Amino acid sequence: MGLRPDALRKIPLFSRLNSALLSRIGGMSTIIAVPAGDILVNRGEIADNLSFLLEGRVTLLGAAIDGSSAVVDVLQPVSGVAIATVLADLPCPVTAQAVAASLLLIVAAAPLRTLLSHAPALTGAVMRDVASDFGAMMRQVMDLKLRSTPQRLGCYLLQQVADTATERADFRLPFDKGLLAARLGCRQENLSRAFATLRDVGVETHGARVILHDVPALRDYALPDAPVGTATRRSDA
Amino acid sequence: MGLRPDALRKIPLFSRLNSALLSRIGGMSTIIAVPAGDILVNRGEIADNLSFLLEGRVTLLGAAIDGSSAVVDVLQPVSGVAIATVLADLPCPVTAQAVAASLLLIVAAAPLRTLLSHAPALTGAVMRDVASDFGAMMRQVMDLKLRSTPQRLGCYLLQQVADTATERADFRLPFDKGLLAARLGCRQENLSRAFATLRDVGVETHGARVILHDVPALRDYALPDAPVGTATRRSDA
Repeated sequence: MGLRPDALRKIPLFSRLNSALLSRIGGMSTIIAVPAGDILVNRGEIADNLSFLLEGRVTLLGAAIDGSSAVVDVLQPVSGVAIATVLADLPCPVTAQAVAASLLLIVAAAPLRTLLSHAPALTGAVMRDVASDFGAMMRQVMDLKLRSTPQRLGCYLLQQVADTATERADFRLPFDKGLLAARLGCRQENLSRAFATLRDVGVETHGARVILHDVPALRDYALPDAPVGTATRRSDA
Repeated sequence: MGLRPDALRKIPLFSRLNSALLSRIGGMSTIIAVPAGDILVNRGEIADNLSFLLEGRVTLLGAAIDGSSAVVDVLQPVSGVAIATVLADLPCPVTAQAVAASLLLIVAAAPLRTLLSHAPALTGAVMRDVASDFGAMMRQVMDLKLRSTPQRLGCYLLQQVADTATERADFRLPFDKGLLAARLGCRQENLSRAFATLRDVGVETHGARVILHDVPALRDYALPDAPVGTATRRSDA
C-alpha cells in the first residue's frame, strides 16, 4: 500500500484535502485491477475497504425474495462504491460487480474511519460526498415516479451531454442497451420502443452511437429535473 | 434553546451517545410545533437546522422542469429530514413540507457540524444514520424497478406489520390514499385497482383500515426484499 497525493486528488471526495492529510490517506490506499464479472462486495457483507472506480464500469444490484435482481445503478468513473455504508461499518444493501475490466482505488476503511473523527476537513468532504450520493438516489426515485420510460431515456441521454447550451450532440452510449434498460427500470423491448418514440424529437441511434438533432425539443419532451438554482439560506427567506 | 438528554435520546441518531455529548447537543436544540402545510425547507435552500420529526407527517417533494412534483418520501416519526444534506451545508434537493400538524426537534447545524469533527462517537452515529437513509432510498429505487404497483402496495402494507411471524394483521394506513398513491408512484385510480388485485391474497380494506388475512400469501405475491442476513466481513469470504 502507499499512494502519492496526486493519485488521490482524482477522487472528488479527496480532491480538496491538504497534502498532509492526503499523505496519510495515501498510506492506507492502493490501486487494483479487476476483471469483468468480479464481485467487489456481496449484498449483506461488510466491506473492509472503500472502493473508488477509476476506470471501467461497476453495477449495484439489489435482490428480491425470489432471487430476481434490479440494477440500482451503473457507476462510471470516478465514483465511490457505497461510501456511506462502508464508513458506517454496515452490511452492504447491494452487490457491487464490475461489468467491464476496471481499475479501483482502494482505501482501508478502519484507519480512514479513525482519521475521519479527527480531521474536520475530511469530515466535511465525506458529508458532501454522501449527501451527493443520497441526492442522486433521490433524483432516481423522482425519475421513476414522475416520468414515462421514453422520458426517462430522454433524461438519461440529456445527462450525457456536458454542454448545456448545445443544440446538437453526438456520442456513444457508455454501456450496452441491456444494462441501460435495467438501469432505467424497463425491459429491453420497452427500451427499443422508447428509442422509437424519441425519433419524433430528433433522437437518432446506430447501435451504441446516439445523435441528438434537437436538444431543446428533447428537453421539452423529457422534462428533466428543474435546476436547484442559486442557493439561499433558509434564514434569508 | 436547551433540551435535556432524555428528549434527544428519542432520536435514533443520538440514542447511543453519552450524557456529556447529549448535554452539548441539547444546548443547540429546541422543539417546535408546526401546522399542516408548513414548509420546513424549500428545494434549493440551505437549511440552518437539522430537523427531526417527533410527531406528525412530513413529505419530501421533488420537482420536474414543468413544475410537476413527485413525493419522494413520506416521513413518519421518528425520522431526520435530509440529514446528510444539512450537515454537508448543501442546498436541499427536495422541499420538506408538513402534511399534518407536526412536532419537530430542531438542532442548529453550524455548531453540530463543528462538534461532529471532534467527537468520534457522533461521527460514527452520523455515518450509520446517513447510510441508513441512503439504504432506504436505494430500496425504493429497487422497489420501483422490480415490482408492479400491486406488489409495491403489498410490500408497503407488509412494512406496516411489526411482527414478522404473524399470519394476520389489522391496522390503519398512516396517511390518506392520495398521498399513498404519490408515495408509491402511481395514480389514485391505479392504487384502487391495486387494492382490488390484492383481495385475492387476503387484503381487505374499509377506508383507512386494512386487514391482512394471510400475511404469508401476501408475502409470496409481493416478494419483498430478501433480508440482508447475517453480516459477514468481506475478508472472511
